[in-house]
Amino acid sequence: MKKQEIPYKIYLEESELPKAWYNLRADMKNKPAPLLDPATHRKMQAKDLAGVFCDELIRQELDEDTAYFPIPEPILNFYKMYRPAPLVRAYCLEEKLQTPAKIYYKFEGNNTSGSHKLNSAIAQAYYAKEQGLKGVTTETGAGQWGTALSMACAYFGLDCKVYMVKVSYEQKPFRREVMRTYGASVTPSPSMETEVGRKILAEHPGTGGSLGCAISEAVEKASNTEGYRYVLGSVLNQVMLHQSIIGLETKAAMDKYGVKPDVIIGCAGGGSNLGGLIAPFMGEKVRGEADYRFIAVEPSSCPSFTRGKYVYDYCDTGMICPLAKMYTLGSNFIPAPSHSGGLRYHGMNSTLSQLYDDGLMEAVSVKQTEVFAAAEQFARVEGILPAPESSHAIKVAIDEALKCKETGEEKTILFGLTGTGYFDMMSYEKFHDGKMNDYVPTEEELAKGLEKLPQI
Amino acid sequence: MKKQEIPYKIYLEESELPKAWYNLRADMKNKPAPLLDPATHRKMQAKDLAGVFCDELIRQELDEDTAYFPIPEPILNFYKMYRPAPLVRAYCLEEKLQTPAKIYYKFEGNNTSGSHKLNSAIAQAYYAKEQGLKGVTTETGAGQWGTALSMACAYFGLDCKVYMVKVSYEQKPFRREVMRTYGASVTPSPSMETEVGRKILAEHPGTGGSLGCAISEAVEKASNTEGYRYVLGSVLNQVMLHQSIIGLETKAAMDKYGVKPDVIIGCAGGGSNLGGLIAPFMGEKVRGEADYRFIAVEPSSCPSFTRGKYVYDYCDTGMICPLAKMYTLGSNFIPAPSHSGGLRYHGMNSTLSQLYDDGLMEAVSVKQTEVFAAAEQFARVEGILPAPESSHAIKVAIDEALKCKETGEEKTILFGLTGTGYFDMMSYEKFHDGKMNDYVPTEEELAKGLEKLPQI
Repeated sequence: MKKQEIPYKIYLEESELPKAWYNLRADMKNKPAPLLDPATHRKMQAKDLAGVFCDELIRQELDEDTAYFPIPEPILNFYKMYRPAPLVRAYCLEEKLQTPAKIYYKFEGNNTSGSHKLNSAIAQAYYAKEQGLKGVTTETGAGQWGTALSMACAYFGLDCKVYMVKVSYEQKPFRREVMRTYGASVTPSPSMETEVGRKILAEHPGTGGSLGCAISEAVEKASNTEGYRYVLGSVLNQVMLHQSIIGLETKAAMDKYGVKPDVIIGCAGGGSNLGGLIAPFMGEKVRGEADYRFIAVEPSSCPSFTRGKYVYDYCDTGMICPLAKMYTLGSNFIPAPSHSGGLRYHGMNSTLSQLYDDGLMEAVSVKQTEVFAAAEQFARVEGILPAPESSHAIKVAIDEALKCKETGEEKTILFGLTGTGYFDMMSYEKFHDGKMNDYVPTEEELAKGLEKLPQI
Repeated sequence: MKKQEIPYKIYLEESELPKAWYNLRADMKNKPAPLLDPATHRKMQAKDLAGVFCDELIRQELDEDTAYFPIPEPILNFYKMYRPAPLVRAYCLEEKLQTPAKIYYKFEGNNTSGSHKLNSAIAQAYYAKEQGLKGVTTETGAGQWGTALSMACAYFGLDCKVYMVKVSYEQKPFRREVMRTYGASVTPSPSMETEVGRKILAEHPGTGGSLGCAISEAVEKASNTEGYRYVLGSVLNQVMLHQSIIGLETKAAMDKYGVKPDVIIGCAGGGSNLGGLIAPFMGEKVRGEADYRFIAVEPSSCPSFTRGKYVYDYCDTGMICPLAKMYTLGSNFIPAPSHSGGLRYHGMNSTLSQLYDDGLMEAVSVKQTEVFAAAEQFARVEGILPAPESSHAIKVAIDEALKCKETGEEKTILFGLTGTGYFDMMSYEKFHDGKMNDYVPTEEELAKGLEKLPQI
């Protein structure tokens, strides 16, 4: 064991919990492109979004100028039940790899939702409650977001209606049961409850559903139901704002011990974790105050950054949501059924897309068997059983640490460990049994995904 | 929200981690009765146990005089990956109950094993490694202990062979998969691998197995295999010793904030959590330095304390383990198949049995539907989804807090939240669907359980 100057786990004091979220867009020179109306292609205004989203969340979504949003006290009180989250020095992994690199990870899995999703769920539930709403609707794929929102709604006494991608609903009955424990109603999607659901079922009777389709159902339901709004766990800029708590805490903990990361690594699906983790560091970079290397890691089966196109696209299958300019595989793209875990959204948050397009961030894609191998290696030395999503970041952090071993560089590597894999053991089982494959979409499949792009 | 003087979560610094375990027996006036040889009924000596247990663990098991055992540094280093564990002030639960009581819980679920079991697993794996052994065998029921031991063995590079009660093996494939992730081999028990397993299968071909039977198999395997020893996750006094870390940390955290509990509540199966939590507090009580009320909570379907007998009994179904004097339902007792979670062992740790017999501790039994109702109530306000085992303590803590509401007393209640329920969602589902029943054994069933007591 190496000499210990920095503790294994850095816990900030409750009094050191950040009191405001950071809005990275305020410091960006090139702002992300605005949301457009799917019918008229005009820039969306607050009033256009009011039937679907909560008022305060719309304000946060559209605000590109305010750098800091104070966190309301009821949200801070809830945060105190599971935050500040630990920043862990991976001494055991470093020793195992025999690397001169110093590895840190911000662990967001120490709460019942099992991931960082709770950071935004509690904020969104709070604003819905403040607005006097009865409830919210949403979709969930792997189930982390649905679980987080159920917990948040139970805390504030809101109804919670979750459309769960049918294949997940069937493969993950225990995720569903956790949501029920928190009082949510969970419907497999596509369902007969909505017009868009019925339409999709008529066209594809045996479909296992998709995130894009579940979004359409949840949005339709919220629009048609008095006292309800729709909430979303990733992709949107309001979510990035709430998730900045991850990066703010991480930076505060590192500053406290005089540590500066050289490389910052996060997994990327819709971008909620990556955007949150890098926010304050990227803020320094765009303001010219410091430099860091940022790496977004995505699955090779759903490679929005590395093989997608930077264009305006639909956010959902039903094409009823606003259009966003983003790196996308096209709303027509269907991730392989063999794909494990989350990170299967066809698009990417618009702010991250702009940063990537500006060359401020790198991206790599990794195959799922190498991701699970890294997950297992990590679990055995660091104790924590990671979520498949988080393990994408682990894989690349290990790769970077091994490069340091070759070059002898003592780099400081930081990555986001977004959650735990307790509800993903079916995927681990596939991996153990050698039944997991490394599907990579062909050029033809990618072209097909982009067939239904809006003409802007 | 109440005015906050004490934080939501009290985390000790890493430097405040206890450096020695506390052996409560050293301070007890009436020592627990010694282990006896099952054949000769003579007091077991270290040499009699050497073929089954690790040498250092035998020393700890038999030592009634040494009050403190220094924790070896490699164990301390492992502890630092997930300890000190938080002591949580249950502000949200207090507010929900509108009670003047102050409620605290020590949360042991923030590690991948999902429970306190890891505290002893890592110690036992360490001593096995130090002795130069190749591996260890054990049994697991609900799966928490097996998971913890798998993690500990992965860390020290030991083989780990787990006999898992067959009904759990089949109902909890994901628990099994976690163990495989950590490299353990898991066999459903009873199996054809051991003599005792083959004998039980011949007598009861369709049996789902039991903890007592899996213990017998694991002990036989360890005795017959070169370089292997048997390890156990509860019941034994060595386990109580390691688990004293729970109580020591709790007491240190409370002392730091000048808090003294009036009532201390823990769930009781074999006694590992209860014994660990109460150790330093009970130490003060038996030394006459302070007084506390202690409550052991057990399931009404497996009520060793409240309806069992204080006698010498077999620890396993195969009757090959040493005899222990304990509160027991008899090794012939079979818990109802409807029983959820752990806490289904027929006996109880001998030290706790002696303390209970001396009137130093109370015990109550609770029904499983009221336990799950308390679990759900707790989850919705405190966020954490508790294990069914831990929820026994939650139920009684809530009852005590509601009594305070009636009397207006501002008592300080402390309970042990031993773990999380992520692998117990099948039981939660039964509860949600109204399919859970409250089985209580009849007097006849209890009498039958005691039919095979040894004649001492």
